[in-house]
Amino acid sequence: MTGTLYGLGIGPGDPELLTLKTARILAEVPVIAWPAPLEGEGMARAIAGAHIPPGRIEIAIRMGFTVDRAGTEAAYDRAAAEIAQHLEQGRDVAVLCEGDPFFFGSFIYLFARLSPRFKVEVVPGVSSIMAASAALQAPLSAWDDGVAVIPSTRSEAEIEALVAACDAAVFMKVGRHLPKIRRVLERAGLWDKARLIERVGLPDQRIHSAATVSELPYFSIILVHRRGQAWL
Amino acid sequence: MTGTLYGLGIGPGDPELLTLKTARILAEVPVIAWPAPLEGEGMARAIAGAHIPPGRIEIAIRMGFTVDRAGTEAAYDRAAAEIAQHLEQGRDVAVLCEGDPFFFGSFIYLFARLSPRFKVEVVPGVSSIMAASAALQAPLSAWDDGVAVIPSTRSEAEIEALVAACDAAVFMKVGRHLPKIRRVLERAGLWDKARLIERVGLPDQRIHSAATVSELPYFSIILVHRRGQAWL
Repeated sequence: MTGTLYGLGIGPGDPELLTLKTARILAEVPVIAWPAPLEGEGMARAIAGAHIPPGRIEIAIRMGFTVDRAGTEAAYDRAAAEIAQHLEQGRDVAVLCEGDPFFFGSFIYLFARLSPRFKVEVVPGVSSIMAASAALQAPLSAWDDGVAVIPSTRSEAEIEALVAACDAAVFMKVGRHLPKIRRVLERAGLWDKARLIERVGLPDQRIHSAATVSELPYFSIILVHRRGQAWL
Repeated sequence: MTGTLYGLGIGPGDPELLTLKTARILAEVPVIAWPAPLEGEGMARAIAGAHIPPGRIEIAIRMGFTVDRAGTEAAYDRAAAEIAQHLEQGRDVAVLCEGDPFFFGSFIYLFARLSPRFKVEVVPGVSSIMAASAALQAPLSAWDDGVAVIPSTRSEAEIEALVAACDAAVFMKVGRHLPKIRRVLERAGLWDKARLIERVGLPDQRIHSAATVSELPYFSIILVHRRGQAWL
């Protein structure tokens, strides 16, 4: 009997946004893996740490911020091999995933490597885009709104096409792409409706104003809706 | 001192997908409101019921499935007035919201009516689109994928424009719109990559195949990704 691989959504940062299911599975499994920087425990373990019982086997999947695609693939290959050993010996393994495992989640790369050989269960989590909307007190979408979720690395032309086709847009990981997004939204007459937040759900979360913002860090989200915030 | 209005995401159907925060607030507040059909307790209360202590004041926000826009507005007006009375008397009120409160959530209409006068806190929840992706074992998006979330009521031309601009598309509340969505995806060469699920997270959840599906109920979701499920 091989073990089960769990991909556990742990939400965007607030430890209380873990689901009951993720908390239960963390209390039960013998092996817990988590993405981490090159040193230290990293954000995922910090978010879920209170639910990891002492004495568990823990696997840090370490990756630098500046690592290239080949380096990333090699790191996931190594982590998958280490996790596979536990699964082969019948031990269940849970992998912590910030936000939701299958919505821009790093768990996807372990899933792709391990799901052909092992039983997998994915526990969905609260996404940072919903947490941003809640923290900004700005609804994302209602009725029959079309919503586009746009990684900020996309080209100006691609962003323009997505914004033109939807009612509401969400930009993730804004960082140095702020001027490009701002240009697109200004041309569309939407910049004054943009809502901006950095590090949602973390202790140093900060809300910015479209009128005064000059820069945003990598972990930032911009929400914008054609109707502004007119919901009645 | 007036009370606080809480919009609580309770997730897509599995009671274990409540967050720890939603469970804590449900244990603390004196008044709990929930959307409901014209008779009976409805889905939201069934999902969260285990976390509602006995003896709480409960408000059913009743609405028929076929009610028109004016009828809907009147029902939210009545619910907002009843909730406002409790808030004015200093009692906190929690409103249950399937999925996430601000992502196509009915809480938006109470928020619009009550947030000008009362303190509001929104607790994000797990969305049905993330739960569908987990249940289908089909990742939604990775890297710099653009994602479109498309209510199935949109016109064929609008759906076509959104699908053309994105890498991954999610169709919500498919029901009788299945033939229209299928036509668009067939023309885009994407229908064989579509993943279909009805009533995600509920005891009668059912996964369908694009090759054999002939109809879907209202509570159905279709996911499709240009790359299919090639994640390596």
